[in-house]
Amino acid sequence: MNFQAGTTGVVVRNIERADQAVVDGLAECGVATVHEAQGRKGLLADYMRPIYAGARIAGSAVTILAPPCDNWMIHVAIEQLQPCDVLLLGTITPSNAGYFGDLLATSAQARGCRGLIIDGGVRDIRDLSEMDFPVWSKAVHAQGTIKETLGSVNVPVVCAGALVNPGDIVVADDDGVCVVRREEAADVLEKARAREANEAAKRARFEAGELGLDIYNMRERLAEKGLKYV
Amino acid sequence: MNFQAGTTGVVVRNIERADQAVVDGLAECGVATVHEAQGRKGLLADYMRPIYAGARIAGSAVTILAPPCDNWMIHVAIEQLQPCDVLLLGTITPSNAGYFGDLLATSAQARGCRGLIIDGGVRDIRDLSEMDFPVWSKAVHAQGTIKETLGSVNVPVVCAGALVNPGDIVVADDDGVCVVRREEAADVLEKARAREANEAAKRARFEAGELGLDIYNMRERLAEKGLKYV
Amino acid sequence: MNFQAGTTGVVVRNIERADQAVVDGLAECGVATVHEAQGRKGLLADYMRPIYAGARIAGSAVTILAPPCDNWMIHVAIEQLQPCDVLLLGTITPSNAGYFGDLLATSAQARGCRGLIIDGGVRDIRDLSEMDFPVWSKAVHAQGTIKETLGSVNVPVVCAGALVNPGDIVVADDDGVCVVRREEAADVLEKARAREANEAAKRARFEAGELGLDIYNMRERLAEKGLKYV
Amino acid sequence: MNFQAGTTGVVVRNIERADQAVVDGLAECGVATVHEAQGRKGLLADYMRPIYAGARIAGSAVTILAPPCDNWMIHVAIEQLQPCDVLLLGTITPSNAGYFGDLLATSAQARGCRGLIIDGGVRDIRDLSEMDFPVWSKAVHAQGTIKETLGSVNVPVVCAGALVNPGDIVVADDDGVCVVRREEAADVLEKARAREANEAAKRARFEAGELGLDIYNMRERLAEKGLKYV
Amino acid sequence: MNFQAGTTGVVVRNIERADQAVVDGLAECGVATVHEAQGRKGLLADYMRPIYAGARIAGSAVTILAPPCDNWMIHVAIEQLQPCDVLLLGTITPSNAGYFGDLLATSAQARGCRGLIIDGGVRDIRDLSEMDFPVWSKAVHAQGTIKETLGSVNVPVVCAGALVNPGDIVVADDDGVCVVRREEAADVLEKARAREANEAAKRARFEAGELGLDIYNMRERLAEKGLKYV
Amino acid sequence: MNFQAGTTGVVVRNIERADQAVVDGLAECGVATVHEAQGRKGLLADYMRPIYAGARIAGSAVTILAPPCDNWMIHVAIEQLQPCDVLLLGTITPSNAGYFGDLLATSAQARGCRGLIIDGGVRDIRDLSEMDFPVWSKAVHAQGTIKETLGSVNVPVVCAGALVNPGDIVVADDDGVCVVRREEAADVLEKARAREANEAAKRARFEAGELGLDIYNMRERLAEKGLKYV
Repeated sequence: MNFQAGTTGVVVRNIERADQAVVDGLAECGVATVHEAQGRKGLLADYMRPIYAGARIAGSAVTILAPPCDNWMIHVAIEQLQPCDVLLLGTITPSNAGYFGDLLATSAQARGCRGLIIDGGVRDIRDLSEMDFPVWSKAVHAQGTIKETLGSVNVPVVCAGALVNPGDIVVADDDGVCVVRREEAADVLEKARAREANEAAKRARFEAGELGLDIYNMRERLAEKGLKYV
Repeated sequence: MNFQAGTTGVVVRNIERADQAVVDGLAECGVATVHEAQGRKGLLADYMRPIYAGARIAGSAVTILAPPCDNWMIHVAIEQLQPCDVLLLGTITPSNAGYFGDLLATSAQARGCRGLIIDGGVRDIRDLSEMDFPVWSKAVHAQGTIKETLGSVNVPVVCAGALVNPGDIVVADDDGVCVVRREEAADVLEKARAREANEAAKRARFEAGELGLDIYNMRERLAEKGLKYV
Repeated sequence: MNFQAGTTGVVVRNIERADQAVVDGLAECGVATVHEAQGRKGLLADYMRPIYAGARIAGSAVTILAPPCDNWMIHVAIEQLQPCDVLLLGTITPSNAGYFGDLLATSAQARGCRGLIIDGGVRDIRDLSEMDFPVWSKAVHAQGTIKETLGSVNVPVVCAGALVNPGDIVVADDDGVCVVRREEAADVLEKARAREANEAAKRARFEAGELGLDIYNMRERLAEKGLKYV
Repeated sequence: MNFQAGTTGVVVRNIERADQAVVDGLAECGVATVHEAQGRKGLLADYMRPIYAGARIAGSAVTILAPPCDNWMIHVAIEQLQPCDVLLLGTITPSNAGYFGDLLATSAQARGCRGLIIDGGVRDIRDLSEMDFPVWSKAVHAQGTIKETLGSVNVPVVCAGALVNPGDIVVADDDGVCVVRREEAADVLEKARAREANEAAKRARFEAGELGLDIYNMRERLAEKGLKYV
Repeated sequence: MNFQAGTTGVVVRNIERADQAVVDGLAECGVATVHEAQGRKGLLADYMRPIYAGARIAGSAVTILAPPCDNWMIHVAIEQLQPCDVLLLGTITPSNAGYFGDLLATSAQARGCRGLIIDGGVRDIRDLSEMDFPVWSKAVHAQGTIKETLGSVNVPVVCAGALVNPGDIVVADDDGVCVVRREEAADVLEKARAREANEAAKRARFEAGELGLDIYNMRERLAEKGLKYV
Repeated sequence: MNFQAGTTGVVVRNIERADQAVVDGLAECGVATVHEAQGRKGLLADYMRPIYAGARIAGSAVTILAPPCDNWMIHVAIEQLQPCDVLLLGTITPSNAGYFGDLLATSAQARGCRGLIIDGGVRDIRDLSEMDFPVWSKAVHAQGTIKETLGSVNVPVVCAGALVNPGDIVVADDDGVCVVRREEAADVLEKARAREANEAAKRARFEAGELGLDIYNMRERLAEKGLKYV
């Protein structure tokens, strides 16, 4: 059963998830490689930053559409989590309020959740760091939220400029966050791994002092474009 | 003797401070808990970020009203510091200039100051980190300031969107900064501790896998609002 | 041979560099001191932040003028690097795209480059941190760039609001980035060291509890301006 | 034939459009009313501002997905325009470059296009104003763009935080921009008109001096919540 | 009866207002002159912009403290309006939602309200322009708000960085918004008028071609500071 | 005599200016055309907006380097104005303070100045509009400035991201601001006029319904890149 992005008042219980080995493989590749491997799409806005450095995760997205300054739907979403999922929250209108803190993280982690992507604010970040519960957010803000209005769980949402469907794979590390369509995940992983292998070979040549100008045969095209050395 | 917010040319020497045990208790509770305990007021804007992670302080505010790009009043304020105070600077017009660096920090620390909250810029942050002198600021910027125009010390100031009276308690940690009225501090601490006790019990239930939907009895109200599971 | 700021299609191969001892001396002094020592000029905008804390470098600038979302010129610039140089990239129009990542860093580091200053985005920051290749940037963003349009290497560029000539000395630390004209570098270093000596003496007095009001003889001038203690 | 949001390299020629009377009716109702009538969804970010005041349009969206600083796809999109359509452009990564100017506007207007919604920059705004070709944009900027990389036409795009499908109805006026799903358009129009009728009655009572407190029976609920008059 | 800034749940019915002739005099002087006349204080942040050019008003502030995305208190405030008052709304946490539109404006105008100052969003701006109901706001946004949580009316509020007490005089024109303490209003008006007279004389001299360097006797002091003409 | 960008304490009295006919010709062509004609360089940041719509000017730049929140140098600069010049102000550190108002405009206009470009704030914009004295600025703000610190007049300055030399031609209209090097001005004008002629021909074809796809022969290259019509 499919719902439009932006639909409110709905919780979709059964969503399809990608093969876990594919999800884990994408985590190893990281955001920049995956983004390139899938043709430079799926990147969230660069204001999405991790609350601490060094985390690198991937997981199937349990999506949340949240009304302004209202975190009620996060409680609803946690019940829908399966181990290795990632919570991803998009807002109906921009807000930096602190929708998420240590109690919600404890609850999510108890269900095997790997982290949170939130186009809004988060709080209790010292506790979250100690719990090793990574969050990528637009803001850190202690501002409390209310529980008055319905949003949805597991409908498509726009998060930090990217459309995310429930079950899409979210990859996140120090570079930011990238989304991979579930049905393309295996193919993207294959391309990402090929890219990594290729980069390893390139890296050795760069380390040895070879220049990109030569490795990529750029000199001729630069000259054609008219580059002048003086 | 009371002055209006924004008054310039005045230094108030004797301000009342809250009981130190209350101040220290608020530091232990942290920003998010204190903010909730006092009814979600007193929070500074989310652009106020610590220069290093992990600091958690509270102190009585010695307030500074600073003219644009002018840090003269900080020298005046340091003389008014008592041990365990916190300096808090609001500007007459927004500026990211570097009003504060390692020499001023050395001077403030010599008088027992616990840290600085500044709606502007700070510099020498490597030195400040090594000194364990925490700062929450709007910016890190080396831009120097001048000493030409009077502001005030210990008048009410607006800092990052919040009104702060001299002697109010400033609580600051990785989540940001919150201000507590001096006359409400003991009551807020009591409520914050009650909140913490309540949260500890809740945390144990969340860790055991219980859901917020059940702990908070949300299911019925969600159904009344029309939430549909599909 | 001199080119105007903004000239495209040119690579200047031979640029003059300051004496290495001077460059290294400026690194030791740090951004805030150098900025003050040269009369408060040369500071880049405060949005330029390091990808990790603790790095403190200086180097002769190999400048890059980059078209929108196009990193071709970085490959061209790397060939022009000499040991201890710093790459500095200004854009023709603002962009947060990820112009630079671990392969380019490997190549630059193989040639002795000390770091990158970029008025745009950077990616692979975990790898760069592990390589000890420091970057000061406007953004962290995985967004890929193209190689289609010429810019220039070693022409004057505007970077984060400051004009930088090729061969100027770039100083960068946790406080941000400052540029020193090559021909003024030795003089600035001398002044910076004098300033440091002076600050060391001041610091001892501040640590002993003396006040800036007394050390700098401010009380009389404050009274003249009309400051009132109440 | 359906494509995912973010698909590149595709032009969909045949898209379904809503009934023109419905489209025109939505234009008359305006953004705020339509936004409310459809349950407060579909609003674009508030940085989308008109280049001149007073325009009020609606049209079926011919969507454009544009690579960074590249306006090639706009030429492709114009061929797909039918009278009364609106061009709507989303970018793969944020950019304020000037993707659109008076020549493209002349071409679009010759095909009956009613205006442009662009999550990027526009230029020649004096000419566009004289032509009565309205544009809602993120920026006004003369910065030129290139024609090197493929995007798509008439695939779903994210524009200023909202998902837009080709053929969805775009409503735009001085308040901003709102998107209505094609299949919901008739229903939304009906609700919008009902809302307008209701508002007209309310307006008469407000003009006569009645208070919202009484018209909406708010006094009792305010008292229950604890509001105190002093 | 006095309440602290940030107090919620309270409506103060009887506030003192300045003499209407003083209020009207301040409107004639305008924001820049009043701001200078009272010693450069009381200015709201520069993001506060009028929805249309040319309005110039002053009035006694009926203040509103509004919870996030909640406009309930505006209805409460309108009952407290007296002819020639100005509504002024500060938020508990930043928001660009559209708290105010044409129906509320109709109601306020029916009670003689001269305009609105809102540290948030406004909608229906075409209607408001046609009604000659001026608004200075942080944003134009159609996003609807709710009516669930109490704020206050006629307590001190922080609005766009300035503290405003109920009954303070708000002056607003194309330059922005400035607040004058009620008890200082007569004195400020006198100084503002003196300033205007002085400026009129200066303007005549400037029109005649005299230079500020001579009118203000700046040449000697510039030379003392070391200015060199080359 | 040449000075570096950022030099303070200097006024250069004799600067070279471009031929007035060339300057006026550039004004007629407008910002977007001039920017393209000179190879897409010289554009100021898009935050530079006119205080009223419809102005279109060009003039030789009398440059001002201003210390933070200090407008003293504007008085110095006005003496250096010749008829048809434009004042252009860059700041040493970012500021939105109101450096310029109606008295300074009266003085500048009395000397034949055509307008002001300011990387900061301006005030009295209603008066300036009535005087037909156009200003392009980063902000409108009534905040007053001081007269304490030296900057320079007619040294190179960075303004809104672009380097401007004294005597360079500044072109400004509703699209923003563009700078043309004095020595290139005649050549740029020639290219701009050729571009206009070419655009006029194109416009006629677009008006007649021809497509850019055909006028620019884009179809083949799009197909080569792989664009698919479905």
